[in-house]
Amino acid sequence: MSLNTYGHLFRVTTWGESHGPALGATVDGCPPGVPLNEADLQVWLDRRKPGQNKFTTQRQEADAVEILSGVFEGLTTGTPIQLMIRNTDQRSKDYGDISEKFRPGHADITYWQKYGIRDYRGGGRSSARETASRVAAGGVARQALGALVPSMTITGYMVGMGGKDIDRSRFDWDEIARNPFWTPDAQAAAEWEEYLGALRKSGSSIGATIEVTIRGCPPGLGAPVYGKLDTGLAAAMMSINAVKGVEIGEGMAAARLTGEANADEIAMGPDGPVYASNHAGGILGGISTGQDIVVRFAVKPTSSILTPRKTITKSGEATEIVTKGRHDPCVGIRAVPVAEAMAAAVILDHLLLDRAQTGGTRGKIG
Amino acid sequence: MSLNTYGHLFRVTTWGESHGPALGATVDGCPPGVPLNEADLQVWLDRRKPGQNKFTTQRQEADAVEILSGVFEGLTTGTPIQLMIRNTDQRSKDYGDISEKFRPGHADITYWQKYGIRDYRGGGRSSARETASRVAAGGVARQALGALVPSMTITGYMVGMGGKDIDRSRFDWDEIARNPFWTPDAQAAAEWEEYLGALRKSGSSIGATIEVTIRGCPPGLGAPVYGKLDTGLAAAMMSINAVKGVEIGEGMAAARLTGEANADEIAMGPDGPVYASNHAGGILGGISTGQDIVVRFAVKPTSSILTPRKTITKSGEATEIVTKGRHDPCVGIRAVPVAEAMAAAVILDHLLLDRAQTGGTRGKIG
Amino acid sequence: MSLNTYGHLFRVTTWGESHGPALGATVDGCPPGVPLNEADLQVWLDRRKPGQNKFTTQRQEADAVEILSGVFEGLTTGTPIQLMIRNTDQRSKDYGDISEKFRPGHADITYWQKYGIRDYRGGGRSSARETASRVAAGGVARQALGALVPSMTITGYMVGMGGKDIDRSRFDWDEIARNPFWTPDAQAAAEWEEYLGALRKSGSSIGATIEVTIRGCPPGLGAPVYGKLDTGLAAAMMSINAVKGVEIGEGMAAARLTGEANADEIAMGPDGPVYASNHAGGILGGISTGQDIVVRFAVKPTSSILTPRKTITKSGEATEIVTKGRHDPCVGIRAVPVAEAMAAAVILDHLLLDRAQTGGTRGKIG
Amino acid sequence: MSLNTYGHLFRVTTWGESHGPALGATVDGCPPGVPLNEADLQVWLDRRKPGQNKFTTQRQEADAVEILSGVFEGLTTGTPIQLMIRNTDQRSKDYGDISEKFRPGHADITYWQKYGIRDYRGGGRSSARETASRVAAGGVARQALGALVPSMTITGYMVGMGGKDIDRSRFDWDEIARNPFWTPDAQAAAEWEEYLGALRKSGSSIGATIEVTIRGCPPGLGAPVYGKLDTGLAAAMMSINAVKGVEIGEGMAAARLTGEANADEIAMGPDGPVYASNHAGGILGGISTGQDIVVRFAVKPTSSILTPRKTITKSGEATEIVTKGRHDPCVGIRAVPVAEAMAAAVILDHLLLDRAQTGGTRGKIG
Repeated sequence: MSLNTYGHLFRVTTWGESHGPALGATVDGCPPGVPLNEADLQVWLDRRKPGQNKFTTQRQEADAVEILSGVFEGLTTGTPIQLMIRNTDQRSKDYGDISEKFRPGHADITYWQKYGIRDYRGGGRSSARETASRVAAGGVARQALGALVPSMTITGYMVGMGGKDIDRSRFDWDEIARNPFWTPDAQAAAEWEEYLGALRKSGSSIGATIEVTIRGCPPGLGAPVYGKLDTGLAAAMMSINAVKGVEIGEGMAAARLTGEANADEIAMGPDGPVYASNHAGGILGGISTGQDIVVRFAVKPTSSILTPRKTITKSGEATEIVTKGRHDPCVGIRAVPVAEAMAAAVILDHLLLDRAQTGGTRGKIG
Repeated sequence: MSLNTYGHLFRVTTWGESHGPALGATVDGCPPGVPLNEADLQVWLDRRKPGQNKFTTQRQEADAVEILSGVFEGLTTGTPIQLMIRNTDQRSKDYGDISEKFRPGHADITYWQKYGIRDYRGGGRSSARETASRVAAGGVARQALGALVPSMTITGYMVGMGGKDIDRSRFDWDEIARNPFWTPDAQAAAEWEEYLGALRKSGSSIGATIEVTIRGCPPGLGAPVYGKLDTGLAAAMMSINAVKGVEIGEGMAAARLTGEANADEIAMGPDGPVYASNHAGGILGGISTGQDIVVRFAVKPTSSILTPRKTITKSGEATEIVTKGRHDPCVGIRAVPVAEAMAAAVILDHLLLDRAQTGGTRGKIG
Repeated sequence: MSLNTYGHLFRVTTWGESHGPALGATVDGCPPGVPLNEADLQVWLDRRKPGQNKFTTQRQEADAVEILSGVFEGLTTGTPIQLMIRNTDQRSKDYGDISEKFRPGHADITYWQKYGIRDYRGGGRSSARETASRVAAGGVARQALGALVPSMTITGYMVGMGGKDIDRSRFDWDEIARNPFWTPDAQAAAEWEEYLGALRKSGSSIGATIEVTIRGCPPGLGAPVYGKLDTGLAAAMMSINAVKGVEIGEGMAAARLTGEANADEIAMGPDGPVYASNHAGGILGGISTGQDIVVRFAVKPTSSILTPRKTITKSGEATEIVTKGRHDPCVGIRAVPVAEAMAAAVILDHLLLDRAQTGGTRGKIG
Repeated sequence: MSLNTYGHLFRVTTWGESHGPALGATVDGCPPGVPLNEADLQVWLDRRKPGQNKFTTQRQEADAVEILSGVFEGLTTGTPIQLMIRNTDQRSKDYGDISEKFRPGHADITYWQKYGIRDYRGGGRSSARETASRVAAGGVARQALGALVPSMTITGYMVGMGGKDIDRSRFDWDEIARNPFWTPDAQAAAEWEEYLGALRKSGSSIGATIEVTIRGCPPGLGAPVYGKLDTGLAAAMMSINAVKGVEIGEGMAAARLTGEANADEIAMGPDGPVYASNHAGGILGGISTGQDIVVRFAVKPTSSILTPRKTITKSGEATEIVTKGRHDPCVGIRAVPVAEAMAAAVILDHLLLDRAQTGGTRGKIG
């Protein structure tokens, strides 16, 4: 029962509030002997860092991560790794109004109803700022995966914004790093740039669809019933702020397919089974097939917008609210590195679980 | 780390294979003093039971549940409740072919690759038969919820099949129990009956979309980050066989909405906050709002079909496979009671967690 | 949070009451491919079985274990193993008196105070009968250990009864199986036989001290802080009914030693480090050294005795109670196979954890 | 599976090494609305702080704790509480010798054998310095207990050193705070002062016995089988560095008692059951009775002594070692506040579990 923790053997507990002195992640279960230093993690944090372009919040945070434990002479020791990120730019004065009013579509009201107390400054614990901790922890997972399965890659990218989806015929892996949306479709990037620019000026916000592809994952990760690899990935993505839907492979579209169309036929290749298609998204019966693992999720638009919205105060009076703080017109953009980090943590966790369960036993084919 | 277990405080571990002597669920954490007998559970098992109409597998199983522990003089004692269902109609001879061949789109190949051994009879542990255990355990959860929050209802129903969705303007709660698809739209039921009848005769199969609505859930259930109520529901649904996508409220469609359209405005009603809409699906920041909780998921079509599909044998040779066993043309139908059971377990678990965390402390509004 | 479960990766959940229809254990996390059948388990259950000699309860139970899942063609499949033992000799009429009165020194009163309901027949869930489930589960652990570390042995034996301790100079491993007390000291066995015979006739009971030695355990099992191997062993032994103290190596006597006397000096042997002594009981810093692991615990005398004792009724009235049921004069005897079973489960669990954490990485010496 | 974490609902993960930049505790599951500030915690840390008298290590540490999250305007918010203590006095040069040699009786060799890497500076993670984190976390537990059960007290004290036990007829609660050994027996304190002074000068060390009494604990905490309150306490104490034995109530001496002597007779008092004695140590069947809970444990002497001891180097060569660093002649002294902190965490955890399980349901007596 660990409500702020994810993972079974590679366990990450995030802590910290948007406007507290610091936030971070306690990472337990990283194998010993993995090369790790702060620069290894900073590269991922810099991708998520706010204020990098006009499409993300203008809050300025260095997001400099400190490793406080668990590393000795550049290698992990197998003991807990504490990662800390100091908050530096907390303009608490911006948030005075929301101490008394609940923003529609926000966790303000439910935190209050649950706990009877909430740190309203910048959303407190419910702020997307919490995801910086996850990105740092995901960096540790990536280092461990790099040591255990060097050929594996985990790549997130945006595939839709506001109902405008990418054209998969233009999919270009190299394009992802070139545009502010982490999208593989250069033309979509150009269109979104214009669209989101206008939206930002109007003080509105928009939802988005993100996809993560894991290439080079070995077969055999995952387990029946509740330990399914897709269960773990779905929970991980759904735990990210503002996510409202998660898909594996065909996802919701699987409801429209016949058995003939959906089943991925199998042939024998030089290195093992090869599949004629990947409707399954790389997972069958909760266990990885060795194909690309494909996860997709939708991020709702932030409810922090400039248009007044009807709401109530803590004392139950009707009022309106306008959110004046610095916010993202499309929080989906910053969800890309977060999703990669979550995927890395889940895959590493299942690699360790599989090591325990089977010790590398595998049924041979051919 | 409990790969066949779900829940934190209300914990269900399912066990058993399709063609073993029995299957069941070990239920730990049910509060004491809850009225419980076998008839209370049987009603839910009977809904899921195969062979009830021409649209579900013709396997004949009584699915009679026995309570082996944890109940004394008609009341739960707070100790583990063991539920057992004997398998009675295991025609193992039907499954000879699949001992050597892997069915495309099935867990056959991944179980083999993971464990180096698999009980191929009827799919073994990966069979949808496992879900009978979940339905029994869900019955326990419903009894406990009935004692703790009598006004709560949990209702599953089919909202789409093969791309043909229901018309929400015809939504009728009473219709759900009247048709073999558990759908609230009588006209959709009539159309599906014809459609699925033809599909069944051709030996094909089709996917479906299921929705579960939880009415009367109190606000305050769930917790930040990984203990989110939607994380728990998403994982629960994704852990059901053949599920490929999960949505809360607007789900994947949230990606298309603006902040103005998505945020549910709040007003003050006589009994607390009332919302102008429910895009959030009853959950904000991972915590229930008190509105209806709405979860939706897609079930892929079964890969057990009569059309030959290309595959390989354990020794790696190319071959074809046709599944001759008794199977469901639309496994989504039987997923309805399973999803209700999983939802009941998740909600009860979070009720108990909330009791521990806050002891009923609530922030007052008004 | 699993109050009836032990283990992290090899997880055992026991269920069942003394006088219900059955009891058993749900075993999750056993590696696949381990040879297992009912006879493998029955041998251990037969050791614990009541009614074998005049020093254990005269209740007659076959204690025949059934494997209901998780095994296919004589091998474990990696899925949950359900073990069930039917209760056959439940003379419920013997226990009428204790439905209203609380036995001093018994869980009667605390179960009532906690749950407001209790299955008083034969002690219900608090009965030592629950340990049959543990012995069955321990048998599974032994089979898995036999496959993974064939040279390991786990042996329990009695080292004290009622203050009369064995003479370690007479310690003979082969003697253990020859006497009803599982003691390595033949002379102590003879003395105890006379002593306990008289005690039994008088309707009294007596405590005992049990020791378990694990030989052949590899170094490196366990982990810092709360995952210490000794933490796991201490919790496992303390969870056995009537246990009031647990010791590792020197145990409580370590309080009397100086640093010079206590530290086990190290030399280099042909196969690795060798130690001049074993005050540590085979564990340093929570991690196994490769020496014999030595655990010891005290079992209190059963409070079910023929001498009247003062107590109260449920309605709070003063009364006396005499326990007339069939009981053990020294419950410590039957704790021996239970302790072995618990030790086997803990060691296997830590072997699997170590496999996950280090993958067999080891620091080389020499 | 959380090897550096204890607790089910009140969860503490400690992190940090003796000579790293900082150490601390991530505390998840503290109820909301509990008054908490740094001074509340500092008082307990100051009790454990090294260098306070000649009987504890001369390392000078401020042990100033910072609260980095989970507290807002002086109250806990229900989100994770991060506690950090900076290391300030790390004289790493003192420890050069032990980078190549293994200290007998120390975790040096097992950490190396497990992980293939170890932070040898000051014992790294295996240092008793880790317990500062536990004391800080225990302070949080105490604050929460103070809010939930104001009349409860948790008091640790030394009852034996080197085989010289206190005389219980001189037991004086008020004496505990007056002497450097936290002992309730003033005469024992005087004798130990002389004894330990001589021992310290000779560079030797000695073991000790510590007892913790919890007064005012309500009945009903704990659960059957593995969730026993005594299981939790035993594991908690055994997880403290250098502990080799744990006892509840009569402890190991229970082996010497008859059923007549051991059972605590029950009478009815004005406020509920009263017991004629407390051999049980306040726990029956794993559940608290409402009597004082009494836990005792033995701490071995530190193996860091000035007398040369035989050992080997990493390369397997025979050598001798003398530990020159600053160490405690009796580490048991500093174990007193640590044990109190662990007890507080366990009791709070079980209070929260009980809240979840029974919601305060209780069987009435009288």
